[in-house]
Amino acid sequence: MDTFEDRLNDAMRSGELNRPPSKAPTMTDNDETHSSPEREAFDHDPIGHAKISSGMSVAEIVSEYGNAGIGAANLSEAVDVTAEAFGREETTVFLGLAGAMVPAGMRAIVSDLIRKGHIDALVTTGANLTHDSIEAIGGKHHHGVHEHPDYGEREFDERLRDEGVDRIYNVYLPQEHFTLFEEHLRTDVFEQIGENVVSIASFTRELGRANAEVNRREDIDEDPGIAAAAYEHDVPIHVPAIQDSVLGLQAWLRSQVSGFSLDALGDMSPLNDLAYNAESTAAFVVGGGVPKNYVLQTMLVTPGAYDYAVQLTMDPPQTGGLSGATLDEARSWGKLKKDARNVSVYADATITFPLVVAGALDAVESDASR
Amino acid sequence: MDTFEDRLNDAMRSGELNRPPSKAPTMTDNDETHSSPEREAFDHDPIGHAKISSGMSVAEIVSEYGNAGIGAANLSEAVDVTAEAFGREETTVFLGLAGAMVPAGMRAIVSDLIRKGHIDALVTTGANLTHDSIEAIGGKHHHGVHEHPDYGEREFDERLRDEGVDRIYNVYLPQEHFTLFEEHLRTDVFEQIGENVVSIASFTRELGRANAEVNRREDIDEDPGIAAAAYEHDVPIHVPAIQDSVLGLQAWLRSQVSGFSLDALGDMSPLNDLAYNAESTAAFVVGGGVPKNYVLQTMLVTPGAYDYAVQLTMDPPQTGGLSGATLDEARSWGKLKKDARNVSVYADATITFPLVVAGALDAVESDASR
Amino acid sequence: MDTFEDRLNDAMRSGELNRPPSKAPTMTDNDETHSSPEREAFDHDPIGHAKISSGMSVAEIVSEYGNAGIGAANLSEAVDVTAEAFGREETTVFLGLAGAMVPAGMRAIVSDLIRKGHIDALVTTGANLTHDSIEAIGGKHHHGVHEHPDYGEREFDERLRDEGVDRIYNVYLPQEHFTLFEEHLRTDVFEQIGENVVSIASFTRELGRANAEVNRREDIDEDPGIAAAAYEHDVPIHVPAIQDSVLGLQAWLRSQVSGFSLDALGDMSPLNDLAYNAESTAAFVVGGGVPKNYVLQTMLVTPGAYDYAVQLTMDPPQTGGLSGATLDEARSWGKLKKDARNVSVYADATITFPLVVAGALDAVESDASR
Amino acid sequence: MDTFEDRLNDAMRSGELNRPPSKAPTMTDNDETHSSPEREAFDHDPIGHAKISSGMSVAEIVSEYGNAGIGAANLSEAVDVTAEAFGREETTVFLGLAGAMVPAGMRAIVSDLIRKGHIDALVTTGANLTHDSIEAIGGKHHHGVHEHPDYGEREFDERLRDEGVDRIYNVYLPQEHFTLFEEHLRTDVFEQIGENVVSIASFTRELGRANAEVNRREDIDEDPGIAAAAYEHDVPIHVPAIQDSVLGLQAWLRSQVSGFSLDALGDMSPLNDLAYNAESTAAFVVGGGVPKNYVLQTMLVTPGAYDYAVQLTMDPPQTGGLSGATLDEARSWGKLKKDARNVSVYADATITFPLVVAGALDAVESDASR
Repeated sequence: MDTFEDRLNDAMRSGELNRPPSKAPTMTDNDETHSSPEREAFDHDPIGHAKISSGMSVAEIVSEYGNAGIGAANLSEAVDVTAEAFGREETTVFLGLAGAMVPAGMRAIVSDLIRKGHIDALVTTGANLTHDSIEAIGGKHHHGVHEHPDYGEREFDERLRDEGVDRIYNVYLPQEHFTLFEEHLRTDVFEQIGENVVSIASFTRELGRANAEVNRREDIDEDPGIAAAAYEHDVPIHVPAIQDSVLGLQAWLRSQVSGFSLDALGDMSPLNDLAYNAESTAAFVVGGGVPKNYVLQTMLVTPGAYDYAVQLTMDPPQTGGLSGATLDEARSWGKLKKDARNVSVYADATITFPLVVAGALDAVESDASR
Repeated sequence: MDTFEDRLNDAMRSGELNRPPSKAPTMTDNDETHSSPEREAFDHDPIGHAKISSGMSVAEIVSEYGNAGIGAANLSEAVDVTAEAFGREETTVFLGLAGAMVPAGMRAIVSDLIRKGHIDALVTTGANLTHDSIEAIGGKHHHGVHEHPDYGEREFDERLRDEGVDRIYNVYLPQEHFTLFEEHLRTDVFEQIGENVVSIASFTRELGRANAEVNRREDIDEDPGIAAAAYEHDVPIHVPAIQDSVLGLQAWLRSQVSGFSLDALGDMSPLNDLAYNAESTAAFVVGGGVPKNYVLQTMLVTPGAYDYAVQLTMDPPQTGGLSGATLDEARSWGKLKKDARNVSVYADATITFPLVVAGALDAVESDASR
Repeated sequence: MDTFEDRLNDAMRSGELNRPPSKAPTMTDNDETHSSPEREAFDHDPIGHAKISSGMSVAEIVSEYGNAGIGAANLSEAVDVTAEAFGREETTVFLGLAGAMVPAGMRAIVSDLIRKGHIDALVTTGANLTHDSIEAIGGKHHHGVHEHPDYGEREFDERLRDEGVDRIYNVYLPQEHFTLFEEHLRTDVFEQIGENVVSIASFTRELGRANAEVNRREDIDEDPGIAAAAYEHDVPIHVPAIQDSVLGLQAWLRSQVSGFSLDALGDMSPLNDLAYNAESTAAFVVGGGVPKNYVLQTMLVTPGAYDYAVQLTMDPPQTGGLSGATLDEARSWGKLKKDARNVSVYADATITFPLVVAGALDAVESDASR
Repeated sequence: MDTFEDRLNDAMRSGELNRPPSKAPTMTDNDETHSSPEREAFDHDPIGHAKISSGMSVAEIVSEYGNAGIGAANLSEAVDVTAEAFGREETTVFLGLAGAMVPAGMRAIVSDLIRKGHIDALVTTGANLTHDSIEAIGGKHHHGVHEHPDYGEREFDERLRDEGVDRIYNVYLPQEHFTLFEEHLRTDVFEQIGENVVSIASFTRELGRANAEVNRREDIDEDPGIAAAAYEHDVPIHVPAIQDSVLGLQAWLRSQVSGFSLDALGDMSPLNDLAYNAESTAAFVVGGGVPKNYVLQTMLVTPGAYDYAVQLTMDPPQTGGLSGATLDEARSWGKLKKDARNVSVYADATITFPLVVAGALDAVESDASR
């Protein structure tokens, strides 16, 4: 057995700790002067460190993220890919918007992107459209807490139940808004559709029309929202799991007393046509679930595949679930082009979505104004 | 300013570090002998530490989890709640099965639970039924890697694409099985349905019938699976987002050349009836997404609410998304009874689902054999 | 058994779906006009939705986060709490900086905060100081990939090993910088300390002095960094687990050939004194691990507790680990005051740390300039 | 532009949806009969599906995990690698045990592994040793809740504070046990060490001796525990961040009134010697943080590297932090051999650690009894 001193002497003599010998004549980072091995896997691309001060613009902080590593570098890359996709006229953008993004306050960002012409098709949940419509006709979500200081989560949620308030993490919705939403559907949507079986995209289009009308007629302060903007700019809204929402429950109740129903397959052709005929395509995916998969799946029935893909999610890939799956996995299915630009940012989407959109609009609109 | 010595002397004299004074005459954990404050929030319930040895049974290791804390204690509680729900004849069990559970190897567990009569309704994804059917007719998924030793994830997925192999995390599916699945649907399912518009549950029932028939006729080694077992035991399968799967794409292709289509709302009444008429109800939720929400939502249109709820998931609540939302949040919506037994286990469901089922069957079947 | 029609008629008549009856005479959100139950748990505080456009400032986007929910609302609150802590002269701020924050590009943010006087004590890892020192003397980290397009993760990491490059997620460090760092320690730090046993904070202070000197003497482009700024502004740097780093390995090698060693307990008194004598205290915790716990633990040996606490982390509380533990849990230990302002942001800290600092500096410096 | 019918006809004719053409003459999974492309990336290794029934043994369920995919397959592989490492006499096993594993009930598993001779060195936290010692001398942790049904988390933690109870997620510790622990240290540990400066491993060895003595003398029901077992079997316990714990605070208090102190670097030589002289080495890492890194780092100062590595963690790699970093990343640093067997299981370690140990002991002891 070697003694410790033997080893230590060796280590001190060679100046190395389990590392290839290297001489370092200067204190600078000049690779030529090192006798290091040939380096092919390594790229020389120094990290510059983020510099932060007061008075910064979003464009500046995004640029600083690009100087940093880990998630910050990915966020900067996401801004760059999104800006390229938004900025190229010929790129068709499919936005997947999961879960609770409207109650979480992301509604105006989506409706503004639609109005600016950056979104060509939206895939989302019935929940997002339910909450979007409630605000379009004058209802409000409220800031709340996910843990009340004076009650346990369970006791607190029992109280909210008694008070007729639904909780979505730290957002509250008084239940009377569901009643108002029900009346809105009965008066302004179902009557117009009548005794017909329609596709889901036709139904969401009617909803958008009705939201826009009521919002204008009742002079509601709040923006008419996502469905209204999509109606006015001819952007289809696809909701594969529409049954799984209050909007879907209302549609079901209506179908029980009339000839109205929804054809689950009726809007798949126009969506697939959009993908098929696009010169260039981008998937912009906020959160996971059905909206993510349905946006990606659209490429399964075309000879093409996505040129750009950005996902903003908290779901890690390690579970094997679709929500956190890497975009490279989608490549094995032929959903992304081999040379597609793609990036995933693993962080809370309510923080990253506004940031990526702000950064991309900065880039697109400063290019446009040149 | 106090000197350090003053403070130190105080601390040493009182024998305390920022804690209420307490005398401790014995070395034992005898609360009566302490002059500690009145304790109402604190429960006296000592942790016993898990003891592990070779030759243990699952029942024994589950019991040891109950002696431990954190997630282990939750897992033990999940076994207990599941056993109570499975063991009570009058309890109607709704199973939500998300994502990639069939390709991940959970198929036989679900079909066996159905055959044993423990599941009364299944809510799942088109993906799970697609993969279930592929195996029913003789196809196979394969063990693979999510990171190949010799290729980068991107390069590797490009190769898989060239080789016609789809990857689901560390599971592979050769694409010819999709072709065989397509032929199966054409020959054994769509012909029988004919030119009709049917509900999604009717469609999955036909699929189950066809899977059972082909499996028997072709003498396939593999079990006929989930849809077949559900067909044979009259358990409805609900797939709210059926479009979002290869099964849904095939249904769409069929709808383009025939009068066949799917009514999105057509099976909501029988599901809601099942919940409405149940004496007692349990939600058993594996993974998040649409299956989780749809199982919980079913209680929105009944005067009742779940008596039991177990969820096995990796999604944390902090994102505000539905997938990781606590079951207490569901209580604010009236989806769980105020006094419901509910527990969430935050860990990989491919590990916890087999363990919870094994533990619950141990408890139920040893009770039954008494 | 009720027929479905009975129930449906009831539901349609009352206009409700398992919800308390409510009348809704107007389309506006006017709570007085509803016959809803008394609401105590519910707060009326409408969500305004984030508005995003090009040309925004960081202050504006932070303000928009405050209009949104979920993590965005928490981020806005974190900016507010941080600004209050930074802005109050009498508040002593303890910064916990975990893991790989320096290689991830967060180095300049920390050194600038120290120079501005916003940090009174730093608790961090040996790794962060090692990487900080490497840059101080002219070394560079490099942008890399965590998954190389042409190699598998394992094969790629084998190649990096052959090329003498260490990988930290998507950041590379050529190993010759460790040799240069070793020479720096030998020439500029250990000689000055001599044959003495010193505290860890004394050792990091000597390191800071040496980094500042070499950085100036060699006219290095890069900022002298965290340890240098801390030295120049008399901010102590505590590294409880210093052994667990290349810096610690070098210290150990030195201790084998000289009388030099590190006293593990030698700097605990001044840190505890700082907490003890502070009029008001704030814990600003970036990442988890030892730096988080050590910052919080400091309050265990004082009669006081933190007045402010902000944590930025990706670790969820569900594992029961310290890194993701809520700040309320710390309250049970007496580490936070009962009425402390505290907020946790669960998202990638390389994204949120620059954002929170930028937002807080905006608030502090605009207040100051009034 | 192609019409939809053109495409549909093409798709129906070729029987493919964006996939390479393939003929499928039989319903069986016979690769030879397919005209599929050459497949090199793809391995033919069918997934068998986990079969679960009542009355199973742990060995059987672990074997079923091996038939499944995603995390279940990794767990099965972790059992296999652990069994090989434990079973080879010549393999030196370094166990890294993070965070709250003792209060979480994992204490007896670790002490039994030490007694069976499966662990050669332990790296852990001061917290684990504090809680281990409290139980050794008769104290108890208690099952609790992380969210109390009747109080909010914050209010509840305030109450626990008033009642003198510390909370670790869902585990409680009444604070008088810290006082008893303090007396134990004063009487049974510090007196014996006297006025000396000792290494941390010497200090933990004295603690183990004292725990064993008091446990025997006082005839405590509970097992003497980890430190006692390590003392009795000459297994060193390394605690790089010992200051960061109640044990460390007590050591500091003692150092203020005596010549006692801890040499931070004093036990690094014997640990490095152990690694240097081992014929074969294994890293078994439970949780992340300092214990994980320190176990891996030990290989930086030897010419060798780990032959086996297993990690059980909930931390995802996406944050870039060390805790969730893949074991392949460690390979770039030379900490793992190129051909090492390594596996990571991403799930709650309080569930997976008992399971992996039980499975590995099954394999080792059934081999031994043959």
